[in-house]
Amino acid sequence: MSGQEHSAPIDFAAAFAGRNVLITGGIGFLGSNIARRLVALGARVTLIDSMIPGYGGNRFNLAGIEDQVAVNIADVRDKSAMDYLVQGRDFLFNLAGQVSHIDSMKDPFTDLDINCRSQLSILESCRHHARGVKIVFAGSRQQYGRPQYLPVDEDHPIRPVDVNGINKVAGEQYHLLYHAIHGIRATSLRLTNTYGQGQLLCHNRQGFVGWFLRLVVEGATIPLYGDGSQLRDLNHVDDVVDAFLIAAADPRADGKVYNLAGVPPISLRELTEQMIAIAGTGRIEFIPWPPEKKAIDIGSYWGSSALIERELGWRPRVTLADGLARTIRFYRQHLARYVHGPQFGGAPEPLR
Amino acid sequence: MSGQEHSAPIDFAAAFAGRNVLITGGIGFLGSNIARRLVALGARVTLIDSMIPGYGGNRFNLAGIEDQVAVNIADVRDKSAMDYLVQGRDFLFNLAGQVSHIDSMKDPFTDLDINCRSQLSILESCRHHARGVKIVFAGSRQQYGRPQYLPVDEDHPIRPVDVNGINKVAGEQYHLLYHAIHGIRATSLRLTNTYGQGQLLCHNRQGFVGWFLRLVVEGATIPLYGDGSQLRDLNHVDDVVDAFLIAAADPRADGKVYNLAGVPPISLRELTEQMIAIAGTGRIEFIPWPPEKKAIDIGSYWGSSALIERELGWRPRVTLADGLARTIRFYRQHLARYVHGPQFGGAPEPLR
Repeated sequence: MSGQEHSAPIDFAAAFAGRNVLITGGIGFLGSNIARRLVALGARVTLIDSMIPGYGGNRFNLAGIEDQVAVNIADVRDKSAMDYLVQGRDFLFNLAGQVSHIDSMKDPFTDLDINCRSQLSILESCRHHARGVKIVFAGSRQQYGRPQYLPVDEDHPIRPVDVNGINKVAGEQYHLLYHAIHGIRATSLRLTNTYGQGQLLCHNRQGFVGWFLRLVVEGATIPLYGDGSQLRDLNHVDDVVDAFLIAAADPRADGKVYNLAGVPPISLRELTEQMIAIAGTGRIEFIPWPPEKKAIDIGSYWGSSALIERELGWRPRVTLADGLARTIRFYRQHLARYVHGPQFGGAPEPLR
Repeated sequence: MSGQEHSAPIDFAAAFAGRNVLITGGIGFLGSNIARRLVALGARVTLIDSMIPGYGGNRFNLAGIEDQVAVNIADVRDKSAMDYLVQGRDFLFNLAGQVSHIDSMKDPFTDLDINCRSQLSILESCRHHARGVKIVFAGSRQQYGRPQYLPVDEDHPIRPVDVNGINKVAGEQYHLLYHAIHGIRATSLRLTNTYGQGQLLCHNRQGFVGWFLRLVVEGATIPLYGDGSQLRDLNHVDDVVDAFLIAAADPRADGKVYNLAGVPPISLRELTEQMIAIAGTGRIEFIPWPPEKKAIDIGSYWGSSALIERELGWRPRVTLADGLARTIRFYRQHLARYVHGPQFGGAPEPLR
């Protein structure tokens, strides 16, 4: 427990300038946004990405910083590559993952290998080759399962409702264990729905936000299950990047787990209506719940980020209206970079 | 939630006679004790065991029932074997595991492959080849980690303090998920320290009880860390067998998790003194805590089994005095079958 509250903002330049940073999943949505920020702060940044089609890696995410980062294509399941690549790093932003809940139910072993086994493997690499590194791990609200109360805080029971959630729990717990037992400093941030520039839009198996944004920008029909009354919280990626940098730089975060929660929660229906109003394109269609979707739906969810606000001073700063406007503007300009071509892999999930 | 309480005892003969039963880890301590009971009830029993040296499989555990069970040597990591062997089963007692917490820290990948990946694999085998099977999974008190309150009930936070605990959590959660999503009926019983006839005694990496029993029977010195004041609860294996049969036969257990708790808790010092008094051999030596043991020690632990008593009518019936006396008598007679020979594998863990 920290005695200090509302401490002075961290000096990011002092924390990261000249520091040696590794980002797994570095060419994906969150990884590339962290990379861009770190480059501006003067960090020496290496990105690892498997570039598996449909997972989120997209070279266009590096537009403008290509010459200021080192790119190393490798899969986190490749232990010898990871053993080598972790060496000499000050910070590891550990973001690589299989993030589709739907895919985890169809192919649970791939999800296990990436989200569970590879996390253990990365930690073993750090234990043997990079004991001084500080790791920030990307956890997920999916770890909680169906909310038993709202907002969900970090003490909420962990009852995941899909294979992805179970494996994310194990992946996070390995980090906390290696901190407690082997002294590898690690923090887990449990992300809620994140949106913004650089997100995967080519299929709808990684959550609804990117997919809805694409449909809106394309002027297409957005299907809402039931009456769209389920509540969700969202974070703009710029706020999430802030949280990762704070968690990396502040030693009070070592060994801790924090929710990142967006405020205030909004219904899927209102969110979609707001997207459509900002874009001036798109329309809603309400359709009945497909049974296999209903089976893994968690109802309304929103989280509390009171703990990270109290201990580390983080809170979301980008309003939904501003964040959506900037995101829609980005995709109006660059949509083709995110939806076309075989490199994206996978077809949209059929709606029923 | 069951409306019925203290219901009539289950008619085991009606539940199991002529039924087709598979037991993973079937030649081990708990598996062979379940097999012996089921054979007496007229079940058709197949035992799967990898017979990995040092894991617990011991052919002597089948003495007297060799001709009444089918034995299939296979590793639960062998998916094609499991795909075949689950077919046509009414019940699966899913006990195979890497159960050494110490080994899980030294070789976390083997623990992951057996306790996490193989559980997913077995469930996939059932999903595709044995949808009607009822599974009872052997969970562990190790899933809870350090107790935040005592006695520990099923709602206690899940904060494992070793790799084994993390992987056992995932293994259990897969079972609950496959019940919820795919309709594979499954129950998890979270075992505390279990003792009795047929236990592995050849090394001290699977918990203290068997190792202490061996030292007592051999008239050796039993080392206690610190002052031996930590409290533990124990169950005799006959009670644990009861619980598995009840959980298998009673449909109210489907999709549920229950603690098996021994009552009353006892300090390691008193327990060891009681073993020595019953055996008439052995002596205690108090030694300082080795730091690497202290790091993963959970302090005092005892559980509550109020839930399974209320819902299914199980409670432990074998007193510690009676159970220890029977167990010590068994090992006085058969010690050589449990401690000598290369088939047991592994040397005792050095004390510091």
